Amino acid sequence: MGFFPVLSPDEKNAVDWYDESLALAELADELGYEHVQVVEHYFSAYGGYSPDPVTFLAAVAARTRRIRVTTGAVVPAFTHPIKLAGKLAMLDNLSHGRLDVGFGRAFLPEEFAAFGVPMSASRARFAEGIDICRRLWTGTEVSWSGDWVTFGPVTMLPRPYQQPHPPIFVASTTSPTSCAEAGRAGYHLQVVPTVTSREALQEMLAAYRQARAAAGHHGPGQVQIKYTCYLAEDGAAALAAARRWELNYIDKMTTAIASWATVRSADYPGYEQLIDKVRRYDFDRSHADNKVLAGTPAQVRDQLATIAEWFGADVTVCLQVNPGATPAAEAQRALRLFAEHVAPHFTGEASRALAGR
Amino acid sequence: MGFFPVLSPDEKNAVDWYDESLALAELADELGYEHVQVVEHYFSAYGGYSPDPVTFLAAVAARTRRIRVTTGAVVPAFTHPIKLAGKLAMLDNLSHGRLDVGFGRAFLPEEFAAFGVPMSASRARFAEGIDICRRLWTGTEVSWSGDWVTFGPVTMLPRPYQQPHPPIFVASTTSPTSCAEAGRAGYHLQVVPTVTSREALQEMLAAYRQARAAAGHHGPGQVQIKYTCYLAEDGAAALAAARRWELNYIDKMTTAIASWATVRSADYPGYEQLIDKVRRYDFDRSHADNKVLAGTPAQVRDQLATIAEWFGADVTVCLQVNPGATPAAEAQRALRLFAEHVAPHFTGEASRALAGR
Repeated sequence: MGFFPVLSPDEKNAVDWYDESLALAELADELGYEHVQVVEHYFSAYGGYSPDPVTFLAAVAARTRRIRVTTGAVVPAFTHPIKLAGKLAMLDNLSHGRLDVGFGRAFLPEEFAAFGVPMSASRARFAEGIDICRRLWTGTEVSWSGDWVTFGPVTMLPRPYQQPHPPIFVASTTSPTSCAEAGRAGYHLQVVPTVTSREALQEMLAAYRQARAAAGHHGPGQVQIKYTCYLAEDGAAALAAARRWELNYIDKMTTAIASWATVRSADYPGYEQLIDKVRRYDFDRSHADNKVLAGTPAQVRDQLATIAEWFGADVTVCLQVNPGATPAAEAQRALRLFAEHVAPHFTGEASRALAGR
Repeated sequence: MGFFPVLSPDEKNAVDWYDESLALAELADELGYEHVQVVEHYFSAYGGYSPDPVTFLAAVAARTRRIRVTTGAVVPAFTHPIKLAGKLAMLDNLSHGRLDVGFGRAFLPEEFAAFGVPMSASRARFAEGIDICRRLWTGTEVSWSGDWVTFGPVTMLPRPYQQPHPPIFVASTTSPTSCAEAGRAGYHLQVVPTVTSREALQEMLAAYRQARAAAGHHGPGQVQIKYTCYLAEDGAAALAAARRWELNYIDKMTTAIASWATVRSADYPGYEQLIDKVRRYDFDRSHADNKVLAGTPAQVRDQLATIAEWFGADVTVCLQVNPGATPAAEAQRALRLFAEHVAPHFTGEASRALAGR
């Protein structure tokens, strides 16, 4: 399951959103879900309640026993790599090795502007940030001299709980090239189905898997795909909620990405089309294209069967059940219904865990 | 109570230290202690298990109900103020308004070198970091143009739980001037008795109180003084443990501050004498000077009565009960003995809370 808080204080206070989300994470832990992840964003109703994923996940780790805690993603560009490596290693220990680290580049011009980081530095900081974390986690007396930072020799404390280091995921939104790079490096992958076509996402996953296999890394790599999910015994009610909160999501996203109307960055090819893509958003088409999971358990099972056909039966589906100011009871119901009536029909490791709880 | 992890992986694994410390925080919460605080340090056995206080305190907040969570201190120089303000506001919400924020300048040359921050920038970043956090917590559409960073207009999310913002403490080690500045600004104060004489600390507190009163701030301000504490029914055993772990502390500190043998900084006057001060350390004198609390409950009561005479009956004593690789059982025993047999003899708010639990 995942958290992407799409709401502002006039819709739900932060304290209530955190309380409800922590309770959902505890429920997911009880129900046998595989991981809980959270995004990093600032300032706006588009994710702004989560400026620091590690802080939230430390609370989740303290309240849960089995579920993995996953950054989805942290942005190295906005945190010094020494600080980032250190707090992630703390979380790995606090969770007894339940940490998966997703790294992302970020893409909102306002965030880069606020941190005083040029968007043109995004890819380099992303890559250097991951490399430094790996070095600090695995090595001692580490010296580093890169394009961004220089330091050392230093030995990071605490040492990570997982050896040689926590699993590393790379968040990629639209670029087959980035996916291939992640595969070559042996990293796992986090993607979202909303901003690409099915074919484009298939191309990204193919590029990832091919590059990973060609580089000879062990196993196929984990692929997490993030879906919002609205489940109810009453399919019409689920669809109505889905329509409401998806349109709210698009509304908040439209505000957050507004500056892409004028921003142009060679490092973010295609992002100038983001506004048009969002403007053309149509809920019914999005639902028909299985970009949002909504309906009765049987209907969502069918959607997932199609998704497994399209993207592979080995992908991990990450469910967001409380986008927007969703009532806590609806979100809890979705988690329960999915665990009871949807997951057992699939054969992945996480489904087996859910079925066997 | 406070945590300053003075240990390395060969003495106790990080996972065990975190587990034991979280359990101590839970026990302190049950026993009615006022706050739990933790330091920020990197790389060495001198605090290196805690590179990010907020991560640890988020876990503490998730496991406790009443006790306050206190950074002691966070270092603005090593984290972008937008990131710092955001994650502290998250912690304030996650803890339902139990956050106290102590800010510090840091003083270890290796930490500044690793982050690529000149020590000469330390005071400016410290001051600017605090100012920015306050502005982001209290204002909307905040623009900032300072010596260090420039940004805005942005509105920080989440909004802090405590209004107008969490209480702010300033950590000061040796400088009456810094203490007076903290008082003038209306901040609270965190001090340590170990690196100054009694008279010097009295002078610092007088400067703080005088400046605070002169500036017309409401109330006297809170003063937290940090002590390591070794308590047992058997006074000789407590003293033996104290001697062992205090010498260990000095040993680890000697390594951490070694570069002050050659570093000179106009922004850290007197720090070049730190090595000599530490070299002259004598446990018995330190104990006689009430810089460490050790003995039976009755003996520690006497020490605290003297401390209250010296520094004021309104100071908050912060106890560290697990410095070094202290066995968990000894640390728990110290917490229990203090709550039962020491605190009730004093009349501060925290003591009343402990007595009335």
